[in-house]
Amino acid sequence: MTELERIQTLILESTPVLGREMAPILDSLGRVLACDIAATEDVPCADISAVDGFAVFHGSLDGASKQNPVVLSVVGESPAGRPCGVTVGQGEAVRIMTGGVIPDGADAVVKKEDTEDQGPLVVCANNPARWGNIRLKGEAFKEGEVVLFAGDVVGPVEVCELASLRRAHVHVYQKPVVAIISTGDELSDFHESSSPGKTMSSTLYGLAAQVLETGAVPLLLGIAPDNPLEQQRLLSEGLRADVVITSGGLSKGKYDFVKETFQSLGVDIKFRNIAMKPGKPAVFGAINKTLIFGFPGNPSASMISFEQFVKPALLKMMGRLPATDAQESPFSAIDSFRLDHMGCNSHSRASLVPCRKLSTGDGKPL
Amino acid sequence: MTELERIQTLILESTPVLGREMAPILDSLGRVLACDIAATEDVPCADISAVDGFAVFHGSLDGASKQNPVVLSVVGESPAGRPCGVTVGQGEAVRIMTGGVIPDGADAVVKKEDTEDQGPLVVCANNPARWGNIRLKGEAFKEGEVVLFAGDVVGPVEVCELASLRRAHVHVYQKPVVAIISTGDELSDFHESSSPGKTMSSTLYGLAAQVLETGAVPLLLGIAPDNPLEQQRLLSEGLRADVVITSGGLSKGKYDFVKETFQSLGVDIKFRNIAMKPGKPAVFGAINKTLIFGFPGNPSASMISFEQFVKPALLKMMGRLPATDAQESPFSAIDSFRLDHMGCNSHSRASLVPCRKLSTGDGKPL
Repeated sequence: MTELERIQTLILESTPVLGREMAPILDSLGRVLACDIAATEDVPCADISAVDGFAVFHGSLDGASKQNPVVLSVVGESPAGRPCGVTVGQGEAVRIMTGGVIPDGADAVVKKEDTEDQGPLVVCANNPARWGNIRLKGEAFKEGEVVLFAGDVVGPVEVCELASLRRAHVHVYQKPVVAIISTGDELSDFHESSSPGKTMSSTLYGLAAQVLETGAVPLLLGIAPDNPLEQQRLLSEGLRADVVITSGGLSKGKYDFVKETFQSLGVDIKFRNIAMKPGKPAVFGAINKTLIFGFPGNPSASMISFEQFVKPALLKMMGRLPATDAQESPFSAIDSFRLDHMGCNSHSRASLVPCRKLSTGDGKPL
Repeated sequence: MTELERIQTLILESTPVLGREMAPILDSLGRVLACDIAATEDVPCADISAVDGFAVFHGSLDGASKQNPVVLSVVGESPAGRPCGVTVGQGEAVRIMTGGVIPDGADAVVKKEDTEDQGPLVVCANNPARWGNIRLKGEAFKEGEVVLFAGDVVGPVEVCELASLRRAHVHVYQKPVVAIISTGDELSDFHESSSPGKTMSSTLYGLAAQVLETGAVPLLLGIAPDNPLEQQRLLSEGLRADVVITSGGLSKGKYDFVKETFQSLGVDIKFRNIAMKPGKPAVFGAINKTLIFGFPGNPSASMISFEQFVKPALLKMMGRLPATDAQESPFSAIDSFRLDHMGCNSHSRASLVPCRKLSTGDGKPL
């Protein structure tokens, strides 16, 4: 186990699975079912025709073929959604549409293509198998059968299945709320005009986008100045969320208070200074059920740290429990991140772009 | 070119790219930029320190090392966001934090780790390169430089870049509105109780989920009964959308009117009866700028048809123009669909599940 894997495991051990909530099925898309879903009735709820044609008593068409067509009397019609009350006997047929209920006495459907409809009579040039072209009651699902399971991720196919089971709402795991705070007197937000020495707090927005992309809810708490009281106020506010991410304020500068603020709020610091670049330095802790991540102020370092440490925790919170096989593990999600950024200059606040453009190394001029 | 590719190409030729709209950057996630984004100022907007330490005139530390440390006078402090007015001369230093503006006269920063801070004096045990540990004005972006391009898909990294360029809103392509109609007297929706011969219109919800997953906006128009006037009314309503999808009402049954309804509304039918299973039969047409897709009533057939025919068109509408290389083509998105459903029984209204559970072929009893 690498150091990175050890830390990821430690984080997941501290991560709770959130509670469940009801969601309309279209809102459940991309989320995880929190309970099994069983059919409350047989689907289909009656024997129905799989084709357009004629419902017949199978014995009536013994030996029927193109060469030896058999003529039956048409005794009724069973369009989709409007079952007819007729019973089909030997030598009789009921005109039927796809989805139409099979009338009593019928045990096969001959396809329209194999017939010549003459109104009161029908000429049949084929002999379907017994129960041929019929979808039997309960063929798709039997009443009580579990169709979808707690832990299944809801995609379009599952939405369709839930609808076919007449489930308008389902229980899914809650979405974690992720409070995001940037720290540093040099930071400004959109409402402030730029001035020398001030940098846009772009990390706030990059992290918020990652939270959204993971399916969780970002809560942008804004910029905390380099001032312990103000940081404490914002961090306390963040503790009402499921996860708090701070960026900046962790290195050796005179005005870096974040670690102290964490401790003053009673956060149980599980580790600090992860041995990776450019993610280092980083802090992870927990208080009550809230996870706290402290990342560097540099946007690319924070965003890579998010992929490595926060995303697996968010997936677990939302019910995507880490599986034993690698393919299902939340860690595999990390691969999707643009890891080409891993190599970029951690000292550059806007280094997400320079790592595409520049390769001059560590802060050296061009 | 296969028949399928020929039809996909024909659909894309009829597909317009939609207009643009302003979106807050977090709402632009997953969407496509509709114009180039240039830097309106240098980023960073001043020379700033990449580390915590001391800004110095490089010449002051000639030959400085652990063995031969050099002592400088500390003449000021430049924390992040609060530039100091001091000019640094030979033998002088300014205490500086990461992000702090480099004072006049300084052309290097010696890292905190390489110093001993004695208040009015600092002992320096290292000689940084000229411009070492400094991020130069405009190093990330020069004013006027194009950083992001029309056609770029906005991910978290792009959101972060847009924020660092102080763009709170950006122009992105509009999301297509996709009207969805199911047809058939046998269908019922959630508000109706189930009865023999009635099936849930699950296709409506499955298609809506696919539309959402593609990043477009579903408009569920509900169920049209097997009645030409009612179908015409719902279809006319659908024509206000960018795309209309109908499911059902296309086969050879007595009550299948959809094709006629399309024609009565003036839809230019481009092709019908696509040679694929279980997607067949299908119809594609256009009227004004609205695309019309008619799919089979069976959910899996409709959902596979969506992936094959509608999704590439929606991607084009949203600015994801088909590229020449296969990797960038919207067609590649099709691979993500669970094509294991391709083999399933097209006659089963709830066949999305049976194709997992059953393999008894075409409507035969178990």
